[in-house]
Amino acid sequence: MKTRLYNARILTMADSFNVIENGEIGIEDGRILYVGEGDGNSTVWDEEIDIKGNLLMPGFKDAHTHSGMTCLRSMADDLPLDRWLKEQIFPREAKLSGEDIYECTRLAILEYLSSGITAVFDMYLTPYTVADAMEDCGMRCVQVGATTDLAKQEEYFNKLNNRSPLTGYMFGYHAEYTFSEDILKELSLLSHKYKSPVFGHNSETASEVEGCIERHGCTPTEFADSLGLFDFGGGGYHCVYLSENDKRIFKDRGIWAVLNPGSNVKLASGIADTQSLLDCGIKLAIGTDGPASNNCLDMFREMFLVTGLSKLKNSDASSVDALKVLYMATAGGAGAMGLNDCDVLAPGKRADIIEIDLQSPNMQPVNNIPKNIVYSGSKSNIKMTMINGVIRYRDGVYNIGEEPSLIYDRVQKIAERIR
Amino acid sequence: MKTRLYNARILTMADSFNVIENGEIGIEDGRILYVGEGDGNSTVWDEEIDIKGNLLMPGFKDAHTHSGMTCLRSMADDLPLDRWLKEQIFPREAKLSGEDIYECTRLAILEYLSSGITAVFDMYLTPYTVADAMEDCGMRCVQVGATTDLAKQEEYFNKLNNRSPLTGYMFGYHAEYTFSEDILKELSLLSHKYKSPVFGHNSETASEVEGCIERHGCTPTEFADSLGLFDFGGGGYHCVYLSENDKRIFKDRGIWAVLNPGSNVKLASGIADTQSLLDCGIKLAIGTDGPASNNCLDMFREMFLVTGLSKLKNSDASSVDALKVLYMATAGGAGAMGLNDCDVLAPGKRADIIEIDLQSPNMQPVNNIPKNIVYSGSKSNIKMTMINGVIRYRDGVYNIGEEPSLIYDRVQKIAERIR
Repeated sequence: MKTRLYNARILTMADSFNVIENGEIGIEDGRILYVGEGDGNSTVWDEEIDIKGNLLMPGFKDAHTHSGMTCLRSMADDLPLDRWLKEQIFPREAKLSGEDIYECTRLAILEYLSSGITAVFDMYLTPYTVADAMEDCGMRCVQVGATTDLAKQEEYFNKLNNRSPLTGYMFGYHAEYTFSEDILKELSLLSHKYKSPVFGHNSETASEVEGCIERHGCTPTEFADSLGLFDFGGGGYHCVYLSENDKRIFKDRGIWAVLNPGSNVKLASGIADTQSLLDCGIKLAIGTDGPASNNCLDMFREMFLVTGLSKLKNSDASSVDALKVLYMATAGGAGAMGLNDCDVLAPGKRADIIEIDLQSPNMQPVNNIPKNIVYSGSKSNIKMTMINGVIRYRDGVYNIGEEPSLIYDRVQKIAERIR
Repeated sequence: MKTRLYNARILTMADSFNVIENGEIGIEDGRILYVGEGDGNSTVWDEEIDIKGNLLMPGFKDAHTHSGMTCLRSMADDLPLDRWLKEQIFPREAKLSGEDIYECTRLAILEYLSSGITAVFDMYLTPYTVADAMEDCGMRCVQVGATTDLAKQEEYFNKLNNRSPLTGYMFGYHAEYTFSEDILKELSLLSHKYKSPVFGHNSETASEVEGCIERHGCTPTEFADSLGLFDFGGGGYHCVYLSENDKRIFKDRGIWAVLNPGSNVKLASGIADTQSLLDCGIKLAIGTDGPASNNCLDMFREMFLVTGLSKLKNSDASSVDALKVLYMATAGGAGAMGLNDCDVLAPGKRADIIEIDLQSPNMQPVNNIPKNIVYSGSKSNIKMTMINGVIRYRDGVYNIGEEPSLIYDRVQKIAERIR
């Protein structure tokens, strides 16, 4: 399959934020052949699409989510994290089957596609049915371990990393407060056995950090690091309350801090100090968190929150500008997920490409495209989402092998059953 | 012209947040005939539209904006308010003609319509060409005085309140720091002459309040009140730094605090204490502020910020819940603008109605519609925007008498000229 996207503005993000004018991208078998001036006339194409001056750029990478929680959206709001989890979420999640999670994940995928998200870093309960949903819909996904059954994590690791170019798996832990020290030590051994990174929720709330210090005499980052969990990389989700020593560990280990501002504001968890993380040279990515805590899966909202909350926190309107945020939301996320061939638009990279409709009032005038995307952009500007060379969404129409209305109906029934 | 919208869920907001199922709305000559169970079969309709189970609700009211600034979008970012205004905005605004502002306002109207905004409270430089743009596009607008030439304000007041059901005008001042005490005293006399409310920017930044205390020995709210500016109502835009005495004045005078969180975060101005304003019983509305400081005209983003920032500021996830925010963004804004027949859906009210597409992944499942709108909603869910009984936007198509691309081209030229 050879596809040519022509007559496009292109933000490759490969080496700068410059926008190529009148460019084109050639794609073959899921990978990019060339970007920029193409040989459009000398190749026989299966598909040629006139982009009509709109923008092509790398898809957004949602670097922390729990896709299967869509059925819980708007069912439990206006509560702090601990009560929200223990009173509202855990009891209802216990009623979800793997098939339920398959359907709920497909609902999330519809939202990812219509929001320009081409890959997600997903942590949830039933990795096989999550992977089934992702593969059936053509969505790219790296899953992260959440179960304390480490034999299961090892099985998932071996099976899910070898069954499709779309799905992967990394070792992980939900959080220090839900995993015992013994299990975390075993997890560290597993990570050493495979020389593989480890991710987990980390320093999301002040009380989580206080609790860890009470239990272990150190912060969640120090504790995980002391067990060797970060010896082969990895990182933490949320990272709202990192101490100076925590930041040193993140920097020295080269591990990722994944920011989740939408969830952090809605659960009143706090504001991550993104400016200071950047100043320390810590690698950053952005995620939506799950649809029960955020409640939407929209990287545009997250990007505006990352920059806006940093400006507020530092009383400095120049803090964490649009270009830095755009990098975190695309190439940054790809780096965190280990998707090093999905980060930018360049020959040989996977064709995970989105089209942004510049012919929309909030994207006009075209004074500065990256700033328009971060400061005034919206998921309503997503015209096309391509993953691995296949267009999965364009002009409001999904290509996932099923009618959205059927998915809506099934998830509605699940929601009503567990309410 | 008689229009019937049927097969709809309806959030009237008239006396509760309950959603009517299988309802309909009858409309004649710009006003609502009935809401709920209709006489759909016994009336002859010019137009009957199957809403297919989607939601009808009152349009959003953008209670503070500067529409004509669209040409400045993404031209001056990442600066604090004072430098942003003096170095970047004022010199460029000086190059704008009334015709330029007409075009730039039309670009803003496209964005309002596609975002479900049915009325705006606009403050800008050339009230006649702004009113022309609003009327030509069928947009509802109340303008607020910004000029220190009070003879002009009186002329605008008399002319713009009597030329169309779509446009109105109120007395106003840009801010205490741009208006002399003498002119504010004259403005107070004008407000008393017409027994009419007065609005202005108020306590947007800490330095504004400090400067006012240095100049006048009291806060901007105390100063305006001492001059009698609020004797016939009105209110303030932003209201980030209100003292306890300021809040008492707002409450006692019954004046409106208009929240602008998007602008306040982007300019690093601060977080308004919405919870405390609510606790004091102060009337609240929400605005986007202009497209050069926000940079988008999207009430969904503002709503999420109002609730999210309040949750953060109070470390309380239950602070300012979705229903309160939804009220501020619709009926609240109408109240601030004096549009008392545009606030809710009820017989006799103006037909300013929007359709929210519930068949979208971020609006599923339908566990709680108001929460879905505030916590996971997006302007991408706006399917239809009706103002004064006329559909001005539906399914991506505008009905404003001109092709959007022509407006984009003209505003692009203006932007390039003033850059």
